[in-house]
Amino acid sequence: MERILIDGAWRDASAAGDFAAINPVEDRELPERYPVSAWTDLERALTAATAAAPALSATDPGRIATFFEDYATRIESARAELVACAALETGLPIEPRLNSVELPRTTNQLRLAARAVRERSWMLPVIDVAANIRACHGPLAAPVVVFGPNNFPLAFNAIAGSDLASAIAARNPVIAKVHPSHPGTSRRLAELAFEAVRSSGLPAATVQMLYHCSNDDGRRLVSDARVGAIGFTGSRTGGLALKKAADAAGRPIYLELSSINPIFLLPGALAERGAALAQEFQGSCLLGSGQFCTNPGVLVLPDDEAADRFVGDAVARFDAHPPALLLNRGVRDHLHEALAALVSAGARVRVGGAASGPGVRFQATLLDVDAPRFIADPRLQTEAFGPVSLLVRAQDAAERLAVARALQGNLTASVYSALDGADDDEAATLSAILRPRVGRLLNDKMPTGVAVSAAMVHGGPYPATGHPGFTAVGMPAAIRRFTALQCYDGVRDVRLPPELQDANSLGIPRCVDGRWIV
Amino acid sequence: MERILIDGAWRDASAAGDFAAINPVEDRELPERYPVSAWTDLERALTAATAAAPALSATDPGRIATFFEDYATRIESARAELVACAALETGLPIEPRLNSVELPRTTNQLRLAARAVRERSWMLPVIDVAANIRACHGPLAAPVVVFGPNNFPLAFNAIAGSDLASAIAARNPVIAKVHPSHPGTSRRLAELAFEAVRSSGLPAATVQMLYHCSNDDGRRLVSDARVGAIGFTGSRTGGLALKKAADAAGRPIYLELSSINPIFLLPGALAERGAALAQEFQGSCLLGSGQFCTNPGVLVLPDDEAADRFVGDAVARFDAHPPALLLNRGVRDHLHEALAALVSAGARVRVGGAASGPGVRFQATLLDVDAPRFIADPRLQTEAFGPVSLLVRAQDAAERLAVARALQGNLTASVYSALDGADDDEAATLSAILRPRVGRLLNDKMPTGVAVSAAMVHGGPYPATGHPGFTAVGMPAAIRRFTALQCYDGVRDVRLPPELQDANSLGIPRCVDGRWIV
Repeated sequence: MERILIDGAWRDASAAGDFAAINPVEDRELPERYPVSAWTDLERALTAATAAAPALSATDPGRIATFFEDYATRIESARAELVACAALETGLPIEPRLNSVELPRTTNQLRLAARAVRERSWMLPVIDVAANIRACHGPLAAPVVVFGPNNFPLAFNAIAGSDLASAIAARNPVIAKVHPSHPGTSRRLAELAFEAVRSSGLPAATVQMLYHCSNDDGRRLVSDARVGAIGFTGSRTGGLALKKAADAAGRPIYLELSSINPIFLLPGALAERGAALAQEFQGSCLLGSGQFCTNPGVLVLPDDEAADRFVGDAVARFDAHPPALLLNRGVRDHLHEALAALVSAGARVRVGGAASGPGVRFQATLLDVDAPRFIADPRLQTEAFGPVSLLVRAQDAAERLAVARALQGNLTASVYSALDGADDDEAATLSAILRPRVGRLLNDKMPTGVAVSAAMVHGGPYPATGHPGFTAVGMPAAIRRFTALQCYDGVRDVRLPPELQDANSLGIPRCVDGRWIV
Repeated sequence: MERILIDGAWRDASAAGDFAAINPVEDRELPERYPVSAWTDLERALTAATAAAPALSATDPGRIATFFEDYATRIESARAELVACAALETGLPIEPRLNSVELPRTTNQLRLAARAVRERSWMLPVIDVAANIRACHGPLAAPVVVFGPNNFPLAFNAIAGSDLASAIAARNPVIAKVHPSHPGTSRRLAELAFEAVRSSGLPAATVQMLYHCSNDDGRRLVSDARVGAIGFTGSRTGGLALKKAADAAGRPIYLELSSINPIFLLPGALAERGAALAQEFQGSCLLGSGQFCTNPGVLVLPDDEAADRFVGDAVARFDAHPPALLLNRGVRDHLHEALAALVSAGARVRVGGAASGPGVRFQATLLDVDAPRFIADPRLQTEAFGPVSLLVRAQDAAERLAVARALQGNLTASVYSALDGADDDEAATLSAILRPRVGRLLNDKMPTGVAVSAAMVHGGPYPATGHPGFTAVGMPAAIRRFTALQCYDGVRDVRLPPELQDANSLGIPRCVDGRWIV
């Protein structure tokens, strides 16, 4: 049985059970056994992280930055081994995905966190000189629990991704509950993270990692009063169960749940460049077998000839696509459930619709439905996580706008409009309707490909996330999730954090008496 | 029966009952009858605010700023009438409190909101030029429901205070559920607010006001999917009931619940200036009859002679103080309950402890308890909202630090230390323990008197509030509660909000490619 990283060492778990990962290419269990931790392990992790938190929150940020840079370098050194293991456990291709996209993304995030930690403008220091009142965002000084998703074994791994980077950048220890579908990758990452912790001299319990626990223990963990905050990326069902427990205990929880990422193809755009759009849509929808939070799950388009051609083209493209390899059996089972929900609500399968072999695969699938039915039945907004999209045919602009108004909160929405301005009026009205319903609004662009950019928002209104004011990606904004807004009133200069001292020896941008000084 | 301000007009309520305010000086009902709104009224308010939200979110900020300035001017014009009515309904003195402190605070907040709306740095615009990804905080474009407290009939009134100012500054309409203990004051404020809405040309449903509703309807209101967010200031019981309903529906709710605002008097400070501290403590504790969120409810002090002198002095001062006039009968009843809880947990009444006449009054009250008992029993952290404080006697520094570690989340904590440096070591350790437990940390200063300053944080960890990352006071930070973080990815320049357009014609501070430019 594999060990867990807890309380500053690799230890035997107090296992309530065990499990193995599968190789989805062969639909076969891998040999290693991993423990399902009992509460004892979680309690020990909480105790250790709570004890480490004050020292970590008082650590010089330079040391935190060194940790991130060291961790990134170690990930690069272990590159071949990591991507091979991740490919085995997830079926994701080594090239270009794991080796040339996801691993560099992971190390880039860690290095951006290092830069943000050194630069510190995310703390938003505010000083009112005459009143001698000062405030900035500071550490929670308490453990942050991170639940990682299945679809990014490296870049969103609970022990290596943006949530971990954000929480530690804010100088909080992390308890990582990694996703059980890629435990070997997670173990190797945790080894590297722990080596970086030791070499940079951070408290040993700055990072802890366990593979799995019961749902009950997960809820108990997030509702523990010692927890500073929680980051979760995964299914709506699992996330909402944790949210309920965390909310009841007053623990801030940041969720990234599910999204259908609607795409609006306006008539002028389709007339202008329908064939190119069909190719672009196929590329985005089937990339990574559609297993992205920002996968375009709903495409709203007119009921005219250009749209008919687009649909015909898209159906042919999906039909010609080989069945898509999935991450694991759970994804396949959820796809079956989601498709059943969509069909029972009135959607018709145009192409695909079934699982397929060898290994864990699913056909590239398109469904369609008319706009009035989509508007009337929220079941048609069920996320089908995988290579599946729903085409919504709208008679006219009014119907398209009504579809937009019926949308629940999403991570993204895209508006494709004619380059010659023919769609501009509709695009303006549509954008105003979509704006408060999504975190990221795109023009003439598919939503997959979440750039790690300071301005990126990977967030949005409920039920896409739990709060519309935050983002899970994008340094330094993502850091602010794991901070507290802290005020110093009449506090002597020597007792202030350096970011708020008169001297500003760090040269941090600050708002002084209402003016930003950089 | 008085009317409510709903859907752009003063209308008869769909009343499920009615009530009157009392004059606490005489403990007698005032003549006006006010409606308890049935759900029909709330539904109508929601419909009207939802319809008004898109137009408001697209309104030029200059018009919003004009509204705030116009409203402030109207409040000043109605000054005599407003403070007379507030005094009648709350028992708070016209001078200096209502006329010279609270009313100017109210108009100051509105004018600071106007300034923040024009200046817009609170939107935190971020631009990544090469990727053409841009983000800023923007309107929720949905109604914000505000529940006002009993203790500030003007400055925290749901129809005039910081929550209203913050929500409208972010360009969201407000449904104000004012506190039923000062309905006449609220009605007059709502009249002025509505006049300002009309004269500045905002959508008529930008402000709506109702007096009261059932607890069931309150929960239904905050869990309605049309609601953008909720601001609540009041009791822990009431706030947590609303939190549960809002959380379950995924509606962001900002709560300001309760706080005991611990004061630590270190030995050197007491030896140095004990008599002055006793006077300062009395002033803060009995100001406004102790009816402040930041009232110093717990005072931690040594068990030495200087502390004995301080306690003797404080007891004499409280004993000599006339019984304090309370806001209403509910405050008196809750004081009885809180005192009973404290006493049953082992606190001893040193002075006061009983209600008193004429009118609704309560004796200035001090209790004491030893540190080990305080640490062991969280009931001793019960807030007694009124002229009541608990003295906690600690044998030594270790006990004082243990008291700090046992504290739940609070709005504030104060550390008094010797000016000659004698307490510096303890103060440093103590401050590090207190920092993550409070929103505002003070040195040598009582926590009452929440300056309306950009750096002010009126917030703190649960259960003082529902989230440690926000503040209810302090422009512009308080505005950010009622915003969404919104990203524009590849969006054409002409479709961007002006804050994110290339030209930056407004000259707003922005972070461009990782550098703040002002």
